Amino acid sequence: MTFIPSTHPRAKSLYIRERLVLAFDKGLVAKEGLMAHGRGEAFDYLIGERTSEAARKAIRAAAMMLMAAQRPVISVNGNIAGLCPKEMVELAFVSGAKIEINLFYGTRKRRQEIAKVLKKNGAKEILGIKKKDAAKLSGLDSARRVVDKNGIFAADVVVVPLEDGDRTLALKRAGKKVITFDLNPLSRTAQTADITIVDNVVRAIGELIKECKKNRPVKKFDNKKNLASTILEIKSNLTRRARLA
Amino acid sequence: MTFIPSTHPRAKSLYIRERLVLAFDKGLVAKEGLMAHGRGEAFDYLIGERTSEAARKAIRAAAMMLMAAQRPVISVNGNIAGLCPKEMVELAFVSGAKIEINLFYGTRKRRQEIAKVLKKNGAKEILGIKKKDAAKLSGLDSARRVVDKNGIFAADVVVVPLEDGDRTLALKRAGKKVITFDLNPLSRTAQTADITIVDNVVRAIGELIKECKKNRPVKKFDNKKNLASTILEIKSNLTRRARLA
Repeated sequence: MTFIPSTHPRAKSLYIRERLVLAFDKGLVAKEGLMAHGRGEAFDYLIGERTSEAARKAIRAAAMMLMAAQRPVISVNGNIAGLCPKEMVELAFVSGAKIEINLFYGTRKRRQEIAKVLKKNGAKEILGIKKKDAAKLSGLDSARRVVDKNGIFAADVVVVPLEDGDRTLALKRAGKKVITFDLNPLSRTAQTADITIVDNVVRAIGELIKECKKNRPVKKFDNKKNLASTILEIKSNLTRRARLA
Repeated sequence: MTFIPSTHPRAKSLYIRERLVLAFDKGLVAKEGLMAHGRGEAFDYLIGERTSEAARKAIRAAAMMLMAAQRPVISVNGNIAGLCPKEMVELAFVSGAKIEINLFYGTRKRRQEIAKVLKKNGAKEILGIKKKDAAKLSGLDSARRVVDKNGIFAADVVVVPLEDGDRTLALKRAGKKVITFDLNPLSRTAQTADITIVDNVVRAIGELIKECKKNRPVKKFDNKKNLASTILEIKSNLTRRARLA
């Protein structure tokens, strides 16, 4: 592991980066996952590497939706398994959600490594592994439309942290409610989901678990409006940073 | 190579991404290089994935500075060797610049693989390889301060596409004129360089070669002002995209 001085102004971000590199070395994370993480870093930098008020609102709304769901499912990919497997298992536990491994760049080996890590962190049942349970979402190319018939296929609410735009659209077309973590408030996933938490998942996940435990009744939430206020905040950060530069 | 449907709205960006993944597989690119590419993708998305008027201005100024240089050097790292080796060799040829391999995460093996690719693309002389020609820049930790005494150490103008902030600062302190490609207009490299081309190097390099061939006399260029206008453009893109979304 590279030595990162704790005094470095962006030490936290560098620790997370190293965690992902370790996960890559263990075979959890795809090469494309490393690049996706880089994109996240850039947007995290622009939102100021902190949980905004808009993100807190989205987290509260997500907790309410998740707790009210009948058949919630949490979709886990390599980056999530590398960054916060324990927290995902806890989120599934407090919300009664199932966990499904769902990969954009999937291989059998990677799927197994991810399942191993999830189990090590306390997961009981893991979906998205057995071939006989494969079902297909429509409107996606063959490799990417496979989901678990007992998981995402049957779900009413799906949590997709760090998801591809095409897949989010396919989930919406299949009638699912979608909760996502996405640091880019303009991405198709961010704009398509019902609730978009524009925050670093590592920073936000604890807050989401805490809110789930409160189990509060569902209130109205306007995702578009919330995203717009995040975009405004990025713009004002750009001005501020440009002044500092 | 992963199949990318040409109907994907961001297919071009995905093709470039795959090119970098191939370069990673060949041993040219570091894991950290994959993440750095992701950061670049995010900023490219924010500048609209096109060459802005500000970028064109910077390209013209860079061509003039490069053509007027006495001992210009182009610094090549793994990402550059993976993305546009042929164009770098051509730029060196039209501008009379030397090519030096200069790596942030360097190993002997990676250095050799990069040299191989550059040679395959027509490079005659490649600096930054022979131990006996190593010289040191001051103000950098040991692994990262080594440059070639016949290359960057003696250069008056250095082109550093995709460079680290610390190293750009060290080059400036050593009295070099620095031209950089950097998609983040707020980065230390972008803010420290004499000329910052805020553009995707794959998209901008052909334009730079073309401008070098025109061989026009040097005109004044205000990098800070040019960067400020790029930041303004990102802000207006954010507004526009938010409206479209």
